[in-house]
Amino acid sequence: MINVALYGAGRIGKIHAANLAREAGVKLKYVVDVYAPAAGQALAQQYGAEFVSPEVPFADADVKAVVIAASTDTHADLILQSASVGKAIFCEKPVDLTLDRARLCAAAVAEAKVPCLIGFQRRYDPTFAAVKARIEAGEIGTPEVLIVTSRDPGAPPLDYLKHSGGIFKDMLIHDFDICRWILDDEPVSVHATASVLTDPAIESVGDADTTAVTIRTRQGQLCQINAIRRAAYGYDQRFEVLGSKGMLQAGNHRPTEVTAYTGEHVATNLPEHFFLERYRAAYAVEMAHFFDVIRTGQAPRTSVEDGLKALELAEAATLSWREGRVVTL
Amino acid sequence: MINVALYGAGRIGKIHAANLAREAGVKLKYVVDVYAPAAGQALAQQYGAEFVSPEVPFADADVKAVVIAASTDTHADLILQSASVGKAIFCEKPVDLTLDRARLCAAAVAEAKVPCLIGFQRRYDPTFAAVKARIEAGEIGTPEVLIVTSRDPGAPPLDYLKHSGGIFKDMLIHDFDICRWILDDEPVSVHATASVLTDPAIESVGDADTTAVTIRTRQGQLCQINAIRRAAYGYDQRFEVLGSKGMLQAGNHRPTEVTAYTGEHVATNLPEHFFLERYRAAYAVEMAHFFDVIRTGQAPRTSVEDGLKALELAEAATLSWREGRVVTL
Amino acid sequence: MINVALYGAGRIGKIHAANLAREAGVKLKYVVDVYAPAAGQALAQQYGAEFVSPEVPFADADVKAVVIAASTDTHADLILQSASVGKAIFCEKPVDLTLDRARLCAAAVAEAKVPCLIGFQRRYDPTFAAVKARIEAGEIGTPEVLIVTSRDPGAPPLDYLKHSGGIFKDMLIHDFDICRWILDDEPVSVHATASVLTDPAIESVGDADTTAVTIRTRQGQLCQINAIRRAAYGYDQRFEVLGSKGMLQAGNHRPTEVTAYTGEHVATNLPEHFFLERYRAAYAVEMAHFFDVIRTGQAPRTSVEDGLKALELAEAATLSWREGRVVTL
Amino acid sequence: MINVALYGAGRIGKIHAANLAREAGVKLKYVVDVYAPAAGQALAQQYGAEFVSPEVPFADADVKAVVIAASTDTHADLILQSASVGKAIFCEKPVDLTLDRARLCAAAVAEAKVPCLIGFQRRYDPTFAAVKARIEAGEIGTPEVLIVTSRDPGAPPLDYLKHSGGIFKDMLIHDFDICRWILDDEPVSVHATASVLTDPAIESVGDADTTAVTIRTRQGQLCQINAIRRAAYGYDQRFEVLGSKGMLQAGNHRPTEVTAYTGEHVATNLPEHFFLERYRAAYAVEMAHFFDVIRTGQAPRTSVEDGLKALELAEAATLSWREGRVVTL
Repeated sequence: MINVALYGAGRIGKIHAANLAREAGVKLKYVVDVYAPAAGQALAQQYGAEFVSPEVPFADADVKAVVIAASTDTHADLILQSASVGKAIFCEKPVDLTLDRARLCAAAVAEAKVPCLIGFQRRYDPTFAAVKARIEAGEIGTPEVLIVTSRDPGAPPLDYLKHSGGIFKDMLIHDFDICRWILDDEPVSVHATASVLTDPAIESVGDADTTAVTIRTRQGQLCQINAIRRAAYGYDQRFEVLGSKGMLQAGNHRPTEVTAYTGEHVATNLPEHFFLERYRAAYAVEMAHFFDVIRTGQAPRTSVEDGLKALELAEAATLSWREGRVVTL
Repeated sequence: MINVALYGAGRIGKIHAANLAREAGVKLKYVVDVYAPAAGQALAQQYGAEFVSPEVPFADADVKAVVIAASTDTHADLILQSASVGKAIFCEKPVDLTLDRARLCAAAVAEAKVPCLIGFQRRYDPTFAAVKARIEAGEIGTPEVLIVTSRDPGAPPLDYLKHSGGIFKDMLIHDFDICRWILDDEPVSVHATASVLTDPAIESVGDADTTAVTIRTRQGQLCQINAIRRAAYGYDQRFEVLGSKGMLQAGNHRPTEVTAYTGEHVATNLPEHFFLERYRAAYAVEMAHFFDVIRTGQAPRTSVEDGLKALELAEAATLSWREGRVVTL
Repeated sequence: MINVALYGAGRIGKIHAANLAREAGVKLKYVVDVYAPAAGQALAQQYGAEFVSPEVPFADADVKAVVIAASTDTHADLILQSASVGKAIFCEKPVDLTLDRARLCAAAVAEAKVPCLIGFQRRYDPTFAAVKARIEAGEIGTPEVLIVTSRDPGAPPLDYLKHSGGIFKDMLIHDFDICRWILDDEPVSVHATASVLTDPAIESVGDADTTAVTIRTRQGQLCQINAIRRAAYGYDQRFEVLGSKGMLQAGNHRPTEVTAYTGEHVATNLPEHFFLERYRAAYAVEMAHFFDVIRTGQAPRTSVEDGLKALELAEAATLSWREGRVVTL
Repeated sequence: MINVALYGAGRIGKIHAANLAREAGVKLKYVVDVYAPAAGQALAQQYGAEFVSPEVPFADADVKAVVIAASTDTHADLILQSASVGKAIFCEKPVDLTLDRARLCAAAVAEAKVPCLIGFQRRYDPTFAAVKARIEAGEIGTPEVLIVTSRDPGAPPLDYLKHSGGIFKDMLIHDFDICRWILDDEPVSVHATASVLTDPAIESVGDADTTAVTIRTRQGQLCQINAIRRAAYGYDQRFEVLGSKGMLQAGNHRPTEVTAYTGEHVATNLPEHFFLERYRAAYAVEMAHFFDVIRTGQAPRTSVEDGLKALELAEAATLSWREGRVVTL
């Protein structure tokens, strides 16, 4: 039996708890949530776990794994503590908002030789993973160009934005990870530009809502990302990879396959509402993979190094945007 | 130069005139229209032709071909006259509303050895013709099941319906031709049922607006047709053929390839408005084929025998509907 | 806590066991499988249930509900026994292969006043249920025409077919239920025809593999069903409803939303492989509904009467096919 | 009758000749082609025109309009000469490869007050024009982001590339025009990067085959263009516009609407083969518009100023790529 401690009982913490509950041989032993104790207690009760203070799980030798779904500013500390006592780590992105601390985490994980999976859940999505597998099978030859479309239904509250690290670290970090994963090469330069088009208040906190990024890899592959905080039609998560022999597109998922013909048009469903719906399957596969990693000793598909590299890109993009120039990595 | 006489200057006559005008080595010499002389004169003038009375073209040895786009009740007479003076014939469907007269026409054409093309324009449509060619190339193995969807945007005026021969002869005759063409076999039995669901007045003239037909061929292939006078979303022209190795679907055409994402749905254009738009390309290909037939002596792709067979099916379907029983052919 | 006994530990029994396990306040207490005791024991062990002989659950007053997923010939007996001791019943379709026994079951259920849900899982499918809800919301006006496409990837073994009751009872029973549900009216006549096109052996057991059915309702609505045992491209489950104001189509589901562009074509995934994949969500919703029914006393969405009506249609269709005539209900 | 002289009897010249022939009240009087006289003579003969040397049409007061479809290096001279003798001008893009000469042309046209339409045919495409019209009708609110995908089936011969002005002037000039047209604002900065990924020989002539461009407008709208010389699946011409209230996508056109289901996938046609097929309708609409401009005195939808602006963007993009920096306009 693998005993697990979960930090964070918010939206994403609940998803992870439910997925944990479905894993055979896994038990949610502890739930921690210092900011929302009521939610933490409720979640603990629902799954027969104990609601405890943050230090308890680290002191319990029976706890094999820690799932970190608390706020971003706690990630690095929890990773460092977990590593220091040899626990397997599942941590939501980003590792941290600063490169220095993220590097500390990576070093600590490396030294402790504990598994550490960073929650880039998109890599576990059936559609995205199928594209990756088909590229690896040679279906489109060498990948040359990647176009990523990443749009949210709406911006989070200003208060969230103030502590988010900015759109490149908060939102595009996923897209930067997709870029490295799909093109299977490292970036050499980044150009980013951004605007505030949806709500002027976003500018007042020094952030942007509409971005356009170009990344160039060592092999000269090109990646364009358009990431936007507000799409009137909802959550839009697509990418397409052009290779020397063809193209693969990853499209949106829809809640149903109903098509309506009326006097005006032929209409299908909007995409799945938001990330909890769109990546439901991805979160389940990701959690199952985490326990496979623990059991088999294989490397996690999304490592702390991946978290670090995505953060480096986010930093470079932010700099490019702020200074209006191309940034070399 | 092939001189042509056109009978009928209505909607479909105008289409044929325009397509004739594009054919190299072809000249529209005469236009005839006894019911709408003004339209006939205007059309003649537009293409530098002469507006004449019906007997003139038959007496002119320079006229090589006759295009019959006048009302249905004139078809048989014009075919018989054209055949008797050795002119190539292009005639809109149906040959006639009665089997007896249609058979007379077929016999006259056979005896005169003139080319006679019946205007089943759907066989010339790029999408439908591609399905046929791909079946013949073996892509789906042996065709086993055909599902035909054939819906108009609205019923024609009651006055038209009274003289139309009923929905099976007027509307489904095209679908019966599709059935024979795609399955490449002859029917052995027909079951038809029909309802009046869009307008009770249709019942008052002894007709129906909503039909469901099942046809069985000698080889046991099955064909289902759903043909309906009124689809709120417009003109719907689809079929799908299931074969032993796969399926081919012929879908609707759309005026543009715009997709709109709004807060409600993802929407594309409705199908092309009606037959003049949907089959624009088909009418052009059909007319070009007619002159190929004249020049090369090849058999027309849609012969008077095809017109006869489709009419036999329409008769059988009407009988099946009226008597509520399966009709054996 | 609602204690449940499951009869049958085959493919569908396993699905139901997994869905039971996810229901809060529900416990799988017993598993019964007289034909495959090893499978039964394994399933019991997996869910902490007891593997017992068939009579044990009926004698246990703690058992509130029975889930019948055993072979068709056991359905009626198990329903009758369950009803006689007042247990809630979930039974896979069909109720029975004979109308007489199915009627006995319906009568017993009515007398015992126990809930009885028949496993027409398609009604619980998100796409199909959305079509139904949108019709009820008036989106397409009055439903007038229903076209059902129902194709399996391949025929079951001959040995299965021999005891299946024939394609109309075994396969189309689902489509007959869809017809009644979507058109919300009762049939007045049925015409069915069928062929053996995929494997001559199917003819040797008196069955067919390719069917075309037309149903007419009291209001004159028309329904066409094409149900086929073998589609080379897999499992095809679609329907479309034409109403006075528009059309709704229920399309296939796909495992991923990948689109591939190669030198030959633009290609998407085949539909979900077979019913276990296609209706995964439906089975879960259906089981949740069963426990809602038990808890709230509401009528099940798919009742034993629905099972009976679908069987009547299957009988009528079989007769129509055998005698080559329209059958009035 | 409007008499027209056509310069250039190549692929695009033939298209224009055919479209001219369909215009009522228009006569192709002269064909000029100094590089391919045989082709010029053949084309002249086909349409009953005269094959003449370049100066003849300018000296003929009966010639009202000039259509320039000759090689790029002749455009400016022919525009200047046409303007100097007061003829209406239809000229293929680009105006010239140098900004200086293009400005000369614009000035000459302005002074002569002759209509001058530059052949950005995409603006006349039914799908693209519908997107523009729907934006103008307010369907998606304010346009904020434009993503343009523009891919050829293969690179032209090296010899062509050497004199093409480079990929930004030769290929993306169309996309730059789309950007200005759809966003309805002027660019303030451009970032371009490019690679040689399809054929190293392209590098040897100082050109690239794979590009990624970001354009920022005065209002802060963002446009990303990915333009590529070789897509294994053919000609790919799409764009999507995200506005404050929704998104409009312009998709590829296909030769037929056939969908094939096999054991491997569900497949539709590739996009129309190349620009002659894809923009067939656009070329016809464009030519009709040219004669509307002549007859009514309205401004052409694609003016010489549009040609100039697109060229400025192409220059800026080339500079950005060469110097690896953002270029301010």
